[in-house]
Amino acid sequence: MTRTARELAQFLDCTMEGEGAAPVSGVAAPSSAGAADLIYVEAAKHLERAASSAARCVVIPRGLALAGKTLLRAENPKLAFARAAEWLMPAAPIAMGIHPTAVISPTAQLADGVAVGPYAVIEDGAKIGAGTEIGAFCFVGRAATIGEQCRLYPRVTLYAGAELANRVILHSGAVIGSDGFGYVQSGGKRWKFPQVGEVRIQDDVEIGANTTIDRGSLDRTEIGAGSKLDNLVHVAHNVRIGTNTVIAAQTGVSGSVVIGRDVAFGGQAGLGDHCVIEDGAIIGGQAGILPGKIVRSGQIVWGTPARPLNKFKTQFAWLSRLPELAKRIEALEKGQKSGDGAGAVND
Amino acid sequence: MTRTARELAQFLDCTMEGEGAAPVSGVAAPSSAGAADLIYVEAAKHLERAASSAARCVVIPRGLALAGKTLLRAENPKLAFARAAEWLMPAAPIAMGIHPTAVISPTAQLADGVAVGPYAVIEDGAKIGAGTEIGAFCFVGRAATIGEQCRLYPRVTLYAGAELANRVILHSGAVIGSDGFGYVQSGGKRWKFPQVGEVRIQDDVEIGANTTIDRGSLDRTEIGAGSKLDNLVHVAHNVRIGTNTVIAAQTGVSGSVVIGRDVAFGGQAGLGDHCVIEDGAIIGGQAGILPGKIVRSGQIVWGTPARPLNKFKTQFAWLSRLPELAKRIEALEKGQKSGDGAGAVND
Amino acid sequence: MTRTARELAQFLDCTMEGEGAAPVSGVAAPSSAGAADLIYVEAAKHLERAASSAARCVVIPRGLALAGKTLLRAENPKLAFARAAEWLMPAAPIAMGIHPTAVISPTAQLADGVAVGPYAVIEDGAKIGAGTEIGAFCFVGRAATIGEQCRLYPRVTLYAGAELANRVILHSGAVIGSDGFGYVQSGGKRWKFPQVGEVRIQDDVEIGANTTIDRGSLDRTEIGAGSKLDNLVHVAHNVRIGTNTVIAAQTGVSGSVVIGRDVAFGGQAGLGDHCVIEDGAIIGGQAGILPGKIVRSGQIVWGTPARPLNKFKTQFAWLSRLPELAKRIEALEKGQKSGDGAGAVND
Repeated sequence: MTRTARELAQFLDCTMEGEGAAPVSGVAAPSSAGAADLIYVEAAKHLERAASSAARCVVIPRGLALAGKTLLRAENPKLAFARAAEWLMPAAPIAMGIHPTAVISPTAQLADGVAVGPYAVIEDGAKIGAGTEIGAFCFVGRAATIGEQCRLYPRVTLYAGAELANRVILHSGAVIGSDGFGYVQSGGKRWKFPQVGEVRIQDDVEIGANTTIDRGSLDRTEIGAGSKLDNLVHVAHNVRIGTNTVIAAQTGVSGSVVIGRDVAFGGQAGLGDHCVIEDGAIIGGQAGILPGKIVRSGQIVWGTPARPLNKFKTQFAWLSRLPELAKRIEALEKGQKSGDGAGAVND
Repeated sequence: MTRTARELAQFLDCTMEGEGAAPVSGVAAPSSAGAADLIYVEAAKHLERAASSAARCVVIPRGLALAGKTLLRAENPKLAFARAAEWLMPAAPIAMGIHPTAVISPTAQLADGVAVGPYAVIEDGAKIGAGTEIGAFCFVGRAATIGEQCRLYPRVTLYAGAELANRVILHSGAVIGSDGFGYVQSGGKRWKFPQVGEVRIQDDVEIGANTTIDRGSLDRTEIGAGSKLDNLVHVAHNVRIGTNTVIAAQTGVSGSVVIGRDVAFGGQAGLGDHCVIEDGAIIGGQAGILPGKIVRSGQIVWGTPARPLNKFKTQFAWLSRLPELAKRIEALEKGQKSGDGAGAVND
Repeated sequence: MTRTARELAQFLDCTMEGEGAAPVSGVAAPSSAGAADLIYVEAAKHLERAASSAARCVVIPRGLALAGKTLLRAENPKLAFARAAEWLMPAAPIAMGIHPTAVISPTAQLADGVAVGPYAVIEDGAKIGAGTEIGAFCFVGRAATIGEQCRLYPRVTLYAGAELANRVILHSGAVIGSDGFGYVQSGGKRWKFPQVGEVRIQDDVEIGANTTIDRGSLDRTEIGAGSKLDNLVHVAHNVRIGTNTVIAAQTGVSGSVVIGRDVAFGGQAGLGDHCVIEDGAIIGGQAGILPGKIVRSGQIVWGTPARPLNKFKTQFAWLSRLPELAKRIEALEKGQKSGDGAGAVND
């Protein structure tokens, strides 16, 4: 879609400087942008590459100057740029209409405007809300419910009864509602503990490719509104995650963990079962939280077992100095062994 | 299925106290249970929440009292509860009959009662045992063999020749028999080492969502009977895993590792190639075992590189005390420098 | 395919000793080989198991003797063995012809000899080069391009616009071109940063089962020619990987990381965003590279945060000796406290 700089400024509620008629049809990085691509600048250090870009239109904070470009002044240029991208380049449809090869149970309920790609399978009693797009090879199990405006990329599995709220995005290969990993050991055998609970993904959650979210065993697994999970993340049974939490790739969350809102996880972090991560905590990449531990609100933790970042840094610094400490101990031992005499001579 | 408390007691071989006619139709957690749901109590500390539950029927160990409920006395209440769940709430079918869209080679052999979901593909020479259910979008490659009563959730891949024994459960996205990661380096290039071996999954194994098990290169990859693998686990070529071993999510097992029986792995553990993990060992979450190392029978190891848990704890405790040790060294240095005089004054 | 030892020697450009007419039809490990299987020996320690193998033909380095076998003398026996395997046991076809159930857009362009398995979906404007095989349930998104002689095992997803060069192998469950994990935080919400860049997989790359490669956000994600990625690897947006690099299973590469050529990664390594890993570096299993760090050409690093292997070893050795160091400090403190007297007595 091509707009003018003026239209874009109106949409973003920005002031504009320069040519209002300049056409803008996409977004790009400064180095690869064409004349009609929008770029953005966040700080003075980015001005040079913006100046040398072919882009005619730039989102820029107040107070920075950039000659020869049409400027859109925004308080948060990156956000304005992201909103412009969504407006100019709306996500391509995942499916259009109901593909004739889709296998849809007669008892499934599809609201208006639902699109279903080739070879998708929608089982008995499933409910799908208006405007939702279901990609090729998606499997929507019995009585699963999906809200409005969701986007399921090709090859997503919803086990029976899984619930998605509105505007949920699931990437290819994601599995929602698989059985949790729970067994009762007896007589040298492991018996399956019932995995009959629920799984609910709230509004505006995005879940990455090949990420797996187990259903509850008896309770519910829940991902709070606005939370974002990267690729290859594992969320076990009965986990509760609050709103607006972000979890980077390959992090693993064990059973019955409770995570608050606005928590941030680096990649490959691991949480033992029954941990509690309070609101706003930050969990470093590869950190390991022991079962049952609590990370307090706002804490930043690192390492395995995880400890406060400052403590980790101090310990790590001393670890690096261990060879030196050992030498100093040796020197002291020599000093002591040689008696006060040596000391006396030196003094 | 609704049963009476008396029928359930008979099935579980429990003694019963209370109303034998009380209907039981499911299992639940105490907080969410309805009157007809069974709950269980393992210890005195769970009595209060059981007492306040709407459930009328409770599995409970001998020696605990709980007024106003129908009690089923079991030595292992959790096991009895799990068995009751299986009886009252049998797993919903993954497929029923042979869906007309399934593409099944005329040379594939399907035993009686095999069910195949929509859009499953079963290739030449595959053999599938009685009562096995194959979900939608499953791919059963050439000459793959599947035993009886297996359950393949939607979207499982068996590469050509993969072998499953009986009662194997594979969750959505699991891949069995992919090529191992083996190359021969020469002339600045990597040539594929042959990945033409076998892969065999023995009886009663359960494999989690998006877990990958590579075939052997020349030999065989094998998962022993009763072993359970969680989601997103990686098992490389030529790995041998014994019986009743449990591997938590995101653990990675490199090529030619040998793992005994009754071994337990925490999540995100990593094993270098040619490790040996003997029977009954316990490998902590995120532990890293160096290539070629042996973890002895019954050992508990932790950390990277992995060491015995006690040793890890001791080292970790001292690591935390390093700043203090450094101060003590400094104090000693000051003491020694100032000569014996200082000591003399203090004494 | 059955060949004679002599034909095989010619193909491999080896000298031959023994029965030129011996038939060879496959490759195997010494213990499981039949008479017509080729085996190989790399060093004297493997001679015994080769001697007791049923195999009649052995690839062997110059200078080693092995009675009773037909010998093919090769400088690099493992490489010769791998090349023989490829010749004798060419990979079974993933698909043959165009399966009638494949849903192929009329605007997609398929070159001669492209094979497409059952239920594959190929969208508008996709281009597929000669000799490429597309397995069952593969999804080739709008305008994706695939070169010649590629092999996509069943159930691979290429998002719209993804590009594969020639002879690329993708294993089951791989996802190429999913959205990167990028958001702009504002007003307690996370807005999706545009993920509209490219993804390109160069010649001769092999990508393991359930591995995920995100597209660029504004730029491009690229995997260089000849690189090999194992199972369950995560490659984030804008990552550039050079040629002939190998990445073992479950490694995670964060956004905008730059990796050179001939780099080797152990399993479960984690790289923070904007790292640079120079040519020929070696990253140990489970190593964690902090965001923005540089690993220099040829360096070997280990641990989290990653440090040079030698430094890691030294620190780790001292960590093990911490209890001893602490005792020595205590002894020094006692010695100092008791004054020079004690020392004097002992001397």
